[in-house]
Order: sequence, then C-alpha cells, then structure tokens
Amino acid sequence: MRNFSETTITGAVLQRLQATPDPRVRHISEALVRHLHAFVREIEPTQEEWSAAIGFLTRTGHLCTQTRQEFILLSDALGVSMLVDAINHRKPAGATETTVLGPFYVEGPREFADGADISGGMTGTPMLVRGMVAGTDGRPLRGAVLDVWHADEGGFYDVQHAPEARAGRGRLLTDAEGRFRFWSVRPSSYPIPHDGTVGAMLAAQGRHPYRPAHVHFIVTAAGFEPLVTHLFIAGDPYLDSDVVFGVKDSIIVDLVDHPPGTAPDGRVVPEAYVELSYDFRLAPAGPCPAPPGGPA
Amino acid sequence: MRNFSETTITGAVLQRLQATPDPRVRHISEALVRHLHAFVREIEPTQEEWSAAIGFLTRTGHLCTQTRQEFILLSDALGVSMLVDAINHRKPAGATETTVLGPFYVEGPREFADGADISGGMTGTPMLVRGMVAGTDGRPLRGAVLDVWHADEGGFYDVQHAPEARAGRGRLLTDAEGRFRFWSVRPSSYPIPHDGTVGAMLAAQGRHPYRPAHVHFIVTAAGFEPLVTHLFIAGDPYLDSDVVFGVKDSIIVDLVDHPPGTAPDGRVVPEAYVELSYDFRLAPAGPCPAPPGGPA
Repeated sequence: MRNFSETTITGAVLQRLQATPDPRVRHISEALVRHLHAFVREIEPTQEEWSAAIGFLTRTGHLCTQTRQEFILLSDALGVSMLVDAINHRKPAGATETTVLGPFYVEGPREFADGADISGGMTGTPMLVRGMVAGTDGRPLRGAVLDVWHADEGGFYDVQHAPEARAGRGRLLTDAEGRFRFWSVRPSSYPIPHDGTVGAMLAAQGRHPYRPAHVHFIVTAAGFEPLVTHLFIAGDPYLDSDVVFGVKDSIIVDLVDHPPGTAPDGRVVPEAYVELSYDFRLAPAGPCPAPPGGPA
Repeated sequence: MRNFSETTITGAVLQRLQATPDPRVRHISEALVRHLHAFVREIEPTQEEWSAAIGFLTRTGHLCTQTRQEFILLSDALGVSMLVDAINHRKPAGATETTVLGPFYVEGPREFADGADISGGMTGTPMLVRGMVAGTDGRPLRGAVLDVWHADEGGFYDVQHAPEARAGRGRLLTDAEGRFRFWSVRPSSYPIPHDGTVGAMLAAQGRHPYRPAHVHFIVTAAGFEPLVTHLFIAGDPYLDSDVVFGVKDSIIVDLVDHPPGTAPDGRVVPEAYVELSYDFRLAPAGPCPAPPGGPA
C-alpha cells in the first residue's frame, strides 16, 4: 500500500473503499473514484489547473448563502440537474412533465387564499394564473398544495433584491373541484446570477446565462408523486437555449391577453392583464423506496 | 433544443459547449460533462441523494478558510491529488519523488538562517534536519530555497492551534555547497481534520483519517522543476494506510537517535535528540508550457 503510480492509484483507492459498511455508500464512492479519476486521466491537468479547480469549488461554496445556491446553479448549467430529474421521473404517460427545482425555492412559503394576489408589491403586467390539479386518471384532487414562485418583470426573484423579501411566491390549496387561481405579475426571462463562478464558467464557454420566462411550481397531494416543474411562457426568445436545459414543449403555455375589465374570477382589473391556464396531472405514488443500507 | 431526456441531455450539453473559444477550456468542459453524466447515469441518484451532494459540496466550501482547505482534503482523500501529482511528475530517473502538497502550506513563510531553530516554541523531541540539494547530475545547488512545514508532537500544525500562529515552518536557503540544516521537533502521525465533510465521508467509508509522520518540503532552484514532497519517518504505523495515498519508499527516512551532547552542527543539546538526513535531487526544468489559449 505504497508507491502508487499513475496506473496503480485508482485501484489503491478502490481497495481502500472495501470496508465501506453501507452498500449504497460503497457503490457511490467507488463510482465517484472511477469516474473522477477517468476525468483527470483524460484531461491531465497541470498543478496550476488543479489549483484553479480547488479555487473554483472553494469560491462556489463561499457564494452559497441562505438565498443563493451556486452549486445548484453549477449542477443546472452542466445539465446534471435535468439528468437527475429525468432519471427520477420515468413517469407513467399522462403525468405533467418535470423540470429543475432551481436555486430560488424558499422553505416555509406564506399561505394564500384561493384567488389571492401573491405579487407582494412586484410591479408589472397583472397575471391571472388558474387551472386544476388531477391524477393521471383525470380525477380532480381536492386540497392539493401548490408552491409557486417566479421572477418579476425585471427578471429578479424577491430574494435577489433582499434576502428577507417575499414577493411573487406563496402556497395555495386546490378547492373541492381541484381548482386553483391566483394573481401575480407576468415574469420576465432573466439571466441566472452570473457574477460568480458559474457566470465565469458560462463566459469561458461562450454561453449566455438566460432562462426563458417561467413560473415555478411544486405540486403535492397525498398518495401522489410530488411534481417539481415550471410553466414556460410561449414566444420567449430563450425557449431554445435555456441555460439549464429545462424546457419541454408540454409545459410551454400561451398567455391570453385581456383588456381592462372584469376578469373570469370576478376581480375588476383597471389595466390590461394576461391569463395563464394549466391543468396539472400527478402520477400516483410508487412503492416506498428501499431504506438506505437495505437490500439493493 | 428542448425536451431533453435521459438519453439526449448529455449530447445537448456537449452541443452547447461548441462555441467555447479556448480549446483547452472546451476540452476540459466536454470531458467534465461526459464523465460527470456517466457517473450520474451509473449511480442513478434519487433527488434526495442529489440534494445531499449539493449540501456536501456547500458545507465543504463553507469549511474553507485562510488556514483550512477542505476541498484539498477531499481531493487528497479521494486519491485525486496523488493522481494529478503522478501525471505531472513523469520525472527523469534520479529526481526525488513527489507527493501531495496538503492543505497546510501557508504563503510567505518566515526566512531563517542556516542552522536556525524553526520550532517556534513547539514542544517535543529536538530534531536536527540536514542534507543537501543537487541536480539529477549530482551537482550541488547553491541558494536553493527550501520551504518546510510539519506537525507537532500532538499531530497538529501551527495554524490548527490558531490561524495566525507560525511554528514548525519556515524558509531556508542552501549554502555554497548546496547544504542545509535546521532544528525543529519530531512530528507525530496525525489525523487530517475530520470534524468536517471529509471526516464524515471517511467515517461513512469505514476509513481512518491518519497520515504517517512526515515533514513537508517545497524545494525550488532556478532552472529546475519545483519539488513538492515529504520526508516520512520510518517505522510509523500508518505508512501502509496513509489516508491520502502519499507514501513512497524512496522518501521514507530513518531517524537517528542521539544522546544529549554536542550535535554535528556544533549545537550543544541538553537532552536526547533525533537526526533526519536527506539529499534532494531536482529535475532540470522542462520547456515552458504553452500559454493558456495557445495552440495545443
């Protein structure tokens, strides 16, 4: 167990992992070492490049706060988040498609009544969002929980303006017919935060940092798989070049333009507004996953 | 450029990298995406495991300070540092073998005169370290620079006691005959810092966190490749299970025990002491590497 060379070091590390008690931890550790070493062997980094990688990861960690998650941005921008999403959502036909969580979800959202305005003072074109939540069999789900968050017309989330700000986000429940409705403002396409390490990476890769306009949803109901997705706004110029590879045709929605007047939910709107309608379909919950350390 | 699935996402990300202007950045980016996606495909992480990985990397970043480098520890413990070291030191025969830098080097070390005591108040058995620095042709190198640092008899580096502490480290120059000598105290084997993410990983992998006792050296001289290495102390119980895979037989040294008395450098030592002798051999500097962005 000494004198490891370029050709023997990987085997030595794998041998050291043989005592790993949990089989899942052992598999992940072994796969990590094999793929990481293969990456290093392929690119043959100089010591300076290795130092640059250590510095990149360190700065990425230091950028992470309660309201900014640079490692999620990195995972998103490298397509890893969408790959993990795809692996975990080999869904039955008929369920709403999933996409990335993104870095701006905040735990413990404020709850709003049906029909409420969640914009929290964001300026922009008023937007009515409504639809229903059902199972893949079409049966409406009463009391399904929708967590919603979106950027403002300038392309910023509330927490980017101030860490404690809460606007354009909230939690709603479906009614007895599985329906939901709320008001906010029309979000804009926006660059992901690109003043950090991920922005530097994108610049070095000749890539723009933009995401097409969208509204985030997490939809949950007892007995169904949680749904993490967005609704994208049709016509956005970045639909074909989303920096995080998240766009799917089935979750692109046409906004309907309305003149000032009485909206479908009875609210009198003194200015032109837009309407976004979508019906979510949740997949039935699968069998419980095996506990960690249990039989594979 | 939409609707990416488990099977198409990797190609989509690689296609997005085609505009990368620098060929080296493009190669590294492409290799990173291929190997990282292959790792994810092999282990098929759950969303919870993905979140755990994001949390692990974030905590690793937050542990990094001016005097603690958890990402270097991670690279070391996964054998990546030794692999990078091996790739970068396909040295001509006769040069001293290299090993990892480790996380405890501090820039701008204090300079000491030949024969000085660099222990800075560390307690332990006095240790005389002496030897010479030469090229692979055996010609002594005058004015070669030795940066030295080591743990104390308790197994801690100065900066682990207090970030601003400086003890058991310093810079020395070789004399006209290429010789160096200094006094310090005998270092102990020690666990790498294991109260953080790397410690948690090692525990999950059933691995101990120990390194065999050693003294770090960076030896530099004009016209020669910088040498980053350790001298390990023969007989240490961890020589065959170094947590960072850094041990090579050619850099294990027998300590010579001496009774109290006049040491070979003329110093009168009132207690028993040990002596560590080693002659370093530096490889001639190779041709300059191509500048970043230049032709491959």
